[in-house]
Amino acid sequence: MRKARIKPAVKESPLFWPVKLAENGRCLRVLDESLIPRKLRYIEVRSLPEAVRVIKQMKTRAFGQFLVVLNTFLLVLANAKTRSPQALLSKIRTAAGRLNHSRPTFPFAEVTAIVVAWAQAAAAQKADVAASVSKNIDGYLQGIRGRRLQRVQKIAEVLRDGDSVLTHCNVSGELAMAAAICRQQGKDLHFFATETRPYMQGAKLTCWELQRMGAQVTLIADNAVGSLMADGLVNKVVVGSDRSCANGDFANKIGTYQIAVLAEEFGIPFYVLTQPSHKIKTGDDIPIEIRKAKELLVFSGKKIVSGPVGGFYPGFDVVPHRLITEAIAIDVR
Amino acid sequence: MRKARIKPAVKESPLFWPVKLAENGRCLRVLDESLIPRKLRYIEVRSLPEAVRVIKQMKTRAFGQFLVVLNTFLLVLANAKTRSPQALLSKIRTAAGRLNHSRPTFPFAEVTAIVVAWAQAAAAQKADVAASVSKNIDGYLQGIRGRRLQRVQKIAEVLRDGDSVLTHCNVSGELAMAAAICRQQGKDLHFFATETRPYMQGAKLTCWELQRMGAQVTLIADNAVGSLMADGLVNKVVVGSDRSCANGDFANKIGTYQIAVLAEEFGIPFYVLTQPSHKIKTGDDIPIEIRKAKELLVFSGKKIVSGPVGGFYPGFDVVPHRLITEAIAIDVR
Repeated sequence: MRKARIKPAVKESPLFWPVKLAENGRCLRVLDESLIPRKLRYIEVRSLPEAVRVIKQMKTRAFGQFLVVLNTFLLVLANAKTRSPQALLSKIRTAAGRLNHSRPTFPFAEVTAIVVAWAQAAAAQKADVAASVSKNIDGYLQGIRGRRLQRVQKIAEVLRDGDSVLTHCNVSGELAMAAAICRQQGKDLHFFATETRPYMQGAKLTCWELQRMGAQVTLIADNAVGSLMADGLVNKVVVGSDRSCANGDFANKIGTYQIAVLAEEFGIPFYVLTQPSHKIKTGDDIPIEIRKAKELLVFSGKKIVSGPVGGFYPGFDVVPHRLITEAIAIDVR
Repeated sequence: MRKARIKPAVKESPLFWPVKLAENGRCLRVLDESLIPRKLRYIEVRSLPEAVRVIKQMKTRAFGQFLVVLNTFLLVLANAKTRSPQALLSKIRTAAGRLNHSRPTFPFAEVTAIVVAWAQAAAAQKADVAASVSKNIDGYLQGIRGRRLQRVQKIAEVLRDGDSVLTHCNVSGELAMAAAICRQQGKDLHFFATETRPYMQGAKLTCWELQRMGAQVTLIADNAVGSLMADGLVNKVVVGSDRSCANGDFANKIGTYQIAVLAEEFGIPFYVLTQPSHKIKTGDDIPIEIRKAKELLVFSGKKIVSGPVGGFYPGFDVVPHRLITEAIAIDVR
């Protein structure tokens, strides 16, 4: 471990670090975000196919998927019946390939390439591949943890007494923990969360974690953003990013782009939490995942349309950097 | 009857004229739009309180509510046990008061004032109030019917071969019937309908009636409008209006405003179907109905949030006239 574990200044939201390693690295406990707010339950993942499945089924999202990807290598190493450096390198490569293809739009290939490089270096030195890669992953994750906690502090600094903050989708614990810090500091804040159709992450996750942290939160439909802004009911926007580019463009959950356009129309400061990648030059280089129409056309088990009606559900959209007031950035590498 | 009944050029969508008078004026058959697309069922309304209830419960919306208001006077007159001009005038006034207060944002007071004026004129002349008011209402409605059918033709003229048209909420049959006319004319069109949370009028009503009329329609989430426009997937927007002003501003279902802002950002022509009122000067004079949070927080019978989470649901928003490319107008008076 390269860094000491950093404790948060406030209690941790379950969404801040939704994947835990258990049973000496033989099991991942992945928070089933699809059950929140009804239940707080963890899915046990014990193999590479199971890991790919929780990613594909969106049981965990964004940062949680990133944690699944990294921790899956620990699972693969713990389950390996060989200590042969070449055999382990081969297993790491196979896992990287499977994980890379589990979902587009996500920067899995960037992070899996790093793990493969660690394995290659250890194998080339005839070192203990499992021990070396495990130590590197653990150090890497602790570094991210520390930087994310720093970002929570930065968000808390951006938020001022009396602010009314609009957010979209879910930023995996950070905004809720920043809200708790602000509360300790005596700042009075109000949050508006968009529903974020079709998965309702705003309603299910963001409202849940904000109220759990003691924040005041009000849900709005995705179509009420313009009205809210026109009526002067929000004075800041804070959103996350699934992928960010060298030029400052970023991709995030569908709907983020139109919120950015509306914020500009009303002169409302627009903040984004980023983890910049210099491998992607601009937003044009980000592939957008088009998800199945069924995810839009069926709600709560019921079809909401009848007859031959199509559905178009791009999972993400791209916000050009010109619409961003300030990127609150961390470097994940 | 002042005008001959005009037949539409294509089959009529049930949403075009969702209220029918039955049983010699003793019953209104009101299309239960809350059951569409699952069932095509009419609610029988036999009294003023029942009429107020279908309005408050949003069993019918917009134009349907307008039809309920007018036809309720026929119901009141048919059920009256007196022929006394003053007693009937009193009943008309009572009904007008109850209907006016059934919902804000709607121009019920304007239309009920016209009916009261007819009743007053008949009572002053000691004429048959019931016969006179009934004849006037029937003529008035036939006039509206003719002008709405003309508007359907105007919409069909605006739509060109190859157009991809975005719409929001539901425009009560007119767009679907215009789509059918375009189809007869050999125009190839595509429609995108927003879901229109929380009532899902886009998914439930617009998709249903467009596909029923043979149009190609694709559902999107309310948050995908910006992305769709940025990707060049729509080249026209057509929306309805619940209330329009002398200066061209109009109020429509929440979400219309942000679509108008986005259309302007992308230079996409924005059309609105209006029935201008010269009694309202500007959009600032339109009261916006804030509906109950529960309507947002409970979906399909299930609460979508947990804990102390508020909900903010303005039913409508106001689009300033500068964002309108062309108002396709009729005069309802």
